[in-house]
Amino acid sequence: MTESSRDRVATLPAVRTVAALRREVATWRGQKLSVALVPTMGALHQGHLALVARARELADRVVASLFVNPAQFGPNEDFARYPRNEMADAGKLAGAGCDLLFAPGVAEIYPPGFATTVDPGPLAERLCGPFRPGHFRGVATVVTKLLLEALPDVACFGEKDYQQLQIIRGVARDLDIPVRIEGVATVREADGLALSSRNAYLTPAERQIAPALHRVLTDAAARVRAGTSPRDAETTAVAQLLAAGFASVDYVELCDATTLEPLAGLDRPARALAAARLGATRLIDNIPVELAS
Amino acid sequence: MTESSRDRVATLPAVRTVAALRREVATWRGQKLSVALVPTMGALHQGHLALVARARELADRVVASLFVNPAQFGPNEDFARYPRNEMADAGKLAGAGCDLLFAPGVAEIYPPGFATTVDPGPLAERLCGPFRPGHFRGVATVVTKLLLEALPDVACFGEKDYQQLQIIRGVARDLDIPVRIEGVATVREADGLALSSRNAYLTPAERQIAPALHRVLTDAAARVRAGTSPRDAETTAVAQLLAAGFASVDYVELCDATTLEPLAGLDRPARALAAARLGATRLIDNIPVELAS
Repeated sequence: MTESSRDRVATLPAVRTVAALRREVATWRGQKLSVALVPTMGALHQGHLALVARARELADRVVASLFVNPAQFGPNEDFARYPRNEMADAGKLAGAGCDLLFAPGVAEIYPPGFATTVDPGPLAERLCGPFRPGHFRGVATVVTKLLLEALPDVACFGEKDYQQLQIIRGVARDLDIPVRIEGVATVREADGLALSSRNAYLTPAERQIAPALHRVLTDAAARVRAGTSPRDAETTAVAQLLAAGFASVDYVELCDATTLEPLAGLDRPARALAAARLGATRLIDNIPVELAS
Repeated sequence: MTESSRDRVATLPAVRTVAALRREVATWRGQKLSVALVPTMGALHQGHLALVARARELADRVVASLFVNPAQFGPNEDFARYPRNEMADAGKLAGAGCDLLFAPGVAEIYPPGFATTVDPGPLAERLCGPFRPGHFRGVATVVTKLLLEALPDVACFGEKDYQQLQIIRGVARDLDIPVRIEGVATVREADGLALSSRNAYLTPAERQIAPALHRVLTDAAARVRAGTSPRDAETTAVAQLLAAGFASVDYVELCDATTLEPLAGLDRPARALAAARLGATRLIDNIPVELAS
């Protein structure tokens, strides 16, 4: 295979370079077809396939990108051990109706001399921000690149990474990237655990504890709706997570659903978000909070 | 005029919003016409009109933007007094064959909640960087926006602002903005002074001194070609500028023409760049340096 040709992985057409991606998209554009992009880091689960399904509803053709972005991992994070299985991922994408896989190497995305960073501003300094320095700059930079490489009509991102979703909305709006950003609801296991590629890191014992994250968030939201102050509900939630067996809690916060600023009460659309650690694994989750009736 | 309609300034069609700009460009695209963008801050002179002329050579239609970008001025710089004369500028652009003026207000480019910054990286820390903190982030951010608002085939920038040009090339390449960046040679007065909107600030006495900047750069380049070390030639040039009447010299540097890293000798394409102050006015200039024969 030459670097710029179209390949197949499993049964899915695949390209490895920006130039080849643009050729495929240009062919679709020439046929007046609309295009959706689903950016992923691989290790695909039903949450990713829900993004592909939504993308298919919104556009004529769906590109999924598979790129484990080194710029969004900290030096002590799990870049090296992040699960990678392109063949299995391509099979899942093909089964979900994806039309093209864009699976570039690191040198295609960050060639020698690469120097530019997209900084999302204050929204990246909240919640997960202090615990993952540089993470959201890395996300914002690579997503900007992927959007400008494919120039899709719409790009789908999971609400599971809710702060990331709001940051991407902000960057796309601020930089005038001509794309619609579509958030897709979190897919959960039967016991409430949000699907995540990092769930694969959990030991069986940790996996038993993990659903407490969603349960505690749901409970905290109910308390706030019943009149408990957000700060009190957060304190209770942290204690519940530690009691359930989480090793530590990075945050539990009730936030404005758009700006992610902390809320003093349910006077506007809200989101409850949490991050907590089970052994070496950091789990995040969030839920919408209905306005008090 | 409604915010989104097409207006005329002097004899030039003008739009004030991104939505209206995109409609005009989409109409051209529908006619299979190519599009060039010439970003300006107004106060137009023959240097800007040379950009329009080059843009006309490279594309079927030319949009000039006129936006005095507050984000690229420091708190002690000349944003408030920067010369503004939209009517005169529009007349000049029409005369030069420009097809459309994009003249947004500050709130159109930076609406409430705007938070994203494009950081060009180390290239922005050199030369003018330390003297104008944040300047090149402001430039990179607004140029990224303008490029994504218009999505032109080509955008023309003057070599007069050579560090800016190289930064914009880097940002466009790094972020995969689908545009060709075209540098256009500096236009000079008969005595060598590079045309600049800021030349209007010079008193008659300062205007007499100003051409020394180009003269000294030319002399420094000749010395280096004749075997003087770049550092020695720079030291001589600084002394010459002060002797000519400049109040202070920010830098004189012989640099790699692409990376702008300082050169120890003429072993690759090079550029001599300088910034110096005449009263309250900061002038910059640069020239290509031919390889020693």
